[in-house]
Amino acid sequence: MQVTLYGLSGADPSRHFSPHVWKVIMALHHKGIAFDFKPVSFTHIPEIEDGFSPTVPVLRHGNQLVRDSFDIALFLEDSYPDAPSLFGGDGGKGMARLIEGFSQNNIHPLISRIAIPDIYNLLAPQDRVYFRKTREPRIGQTIEEVSISRLAEVSVLQARFEPIRHALKHQPWLSGDAPRFADYILFGALQWLRVTSPVPVLHDGDPVREWFERCLNLHGGVGHSVTAAA
Amino acid sequence: MQVTLYGLSGADPSRHFSPHVWKVIMALHHKGIAFDFKPVSFTHIPEIEDGFSPTVPVLRHGNQLVRDSFDIALFLEDSYPDAPSLFGGDGGKGMARLIEGFSQNNIHPLISRIAIPDIYNLLAPQDRVYFRKTREPRIGQTIEEVSISRLAEVSVLQARFEPIRHALKHQPWLSGDAPRFADYILFGALQWLRVTSPVPVLHDGDPVREWFERCLNLHGGVGHSVTAAA
Repeated sequence: MQVTLYGLSGADPSRHFSPHVWKVIMALHHKGIAFDFKPVSFTHIPEIEDGFSPTVPVLRHGNQLVRDSFDIALFLEDSYPDAPSLFGGDGGKGMARLIEGFSQNNIHPLISRIAIPDIYNLLAPQDRVYFRKTREPRIGQTIEEVSISRLAEVSVLQARFEPIRHALKHQPWLSGDAPRFADYILFGALQWLRVTSPVPVLHDGDPVREWFERCLNLHGGVGHSVTAAA
Repeated sequence: MQVTLYGLSGADPSRHFSPHVWKVIMALHHKGIAFDFKPVSFTHIPEIEDGFSPTVPVLRHGNQLVRDSFDIALFLEDSYPDAPSLFGGDGGKGMARLIEGFSQNNIHPLISRIAIPDIYNLLAPQDRVYFRKTREPRIGQTIEEVSISRLAEVSVLQARFEPIRHALKHQPWLSGDAPRFADYILFGALQWLRVTSPVPVLHDGDPVREWFERCLNLHGGVGHSVTAAA
């Protein structure tokens, strides 16, 4: 079975950073599936698989194409029922949607506001034009204004992890006794920050940082395959 | 098996409102366990079962005593493995802790700031003294100041439900295809608000309100056994 995952990178194709693609990379490793990884730049996404999706990740799995990270996780769970579960039961499958909501509503906007100037600098010239045009209206500031205002967002983001710290008082993973897709959802967000931005957010001794380090070490340390921004 | 749940009420013992006790009421019904319910007032909690716990809920289950709503849910799940699961698998059990963290960190403080003046009015005189002394330092305002400032908190609370709305786009319950303890965790918070305060928070047509109504109708409509504050 030929499996190909399309992801997103800046000018350097080895520095791929999409949070949603990282969720799928972890999910494929979790299921023990070998795959080819093809990062493309923002402005080339519409060319993937004849315009199959306006966003990445896109997964080709033999003759099938699947898009959207959660839908890909559901597809992998159904297609590989004998490999370790990504959800740990029906309850976990449902609650993972809430954790996706938490990550996208409460965490992503802050990471975006912190990392946008760094992401801009990672991009190839044609992508910079696209990125500025789409992101500046979304955040209501120019990229240059964000680089000044963003440090005030760090403490806001740090506080947003309180529900995670609560869970980690009781268990090593967000999913309980073993890492599962809910962990990869939030890992994707923090890996996006780690790969793109040198702004420090998680301090030594923060249980969220310790959990993130455990995630980086999973599956042969695939999270370390892209180095942290410096 | 004699099962007794100790809860919390104001001057009128029929108007019990503790969010953590409501979680356990729903969990006991979920497992199909008959129980006696004994609400006590704040200042009588230390007398429950010879001072077994500084807080409610407390569950007596035959010769066993269990405290803390999550620990009680875990106890019920282990003790009644053949009744419907409260977690829907190991993944759900882990992720429910994160949803507990979300409810307690992101939702409870706002409900507290909105409902405190109403809760104060529900209490018996000796409880009012205790409540004022413990709550005012915690919120940094007098109860009278809160009754003026609290309406500004309503829109903040409404926005905090965004991760829930995200999950409800995909499924009828926070736990997925069936209600489970994660639903009861957030139900407890909103039931606490419903029973104590007439301040409207969830508008008609809000998916969170529709989900909450579904919760109120579960288990023979036990959530309706205490009427809404008016």
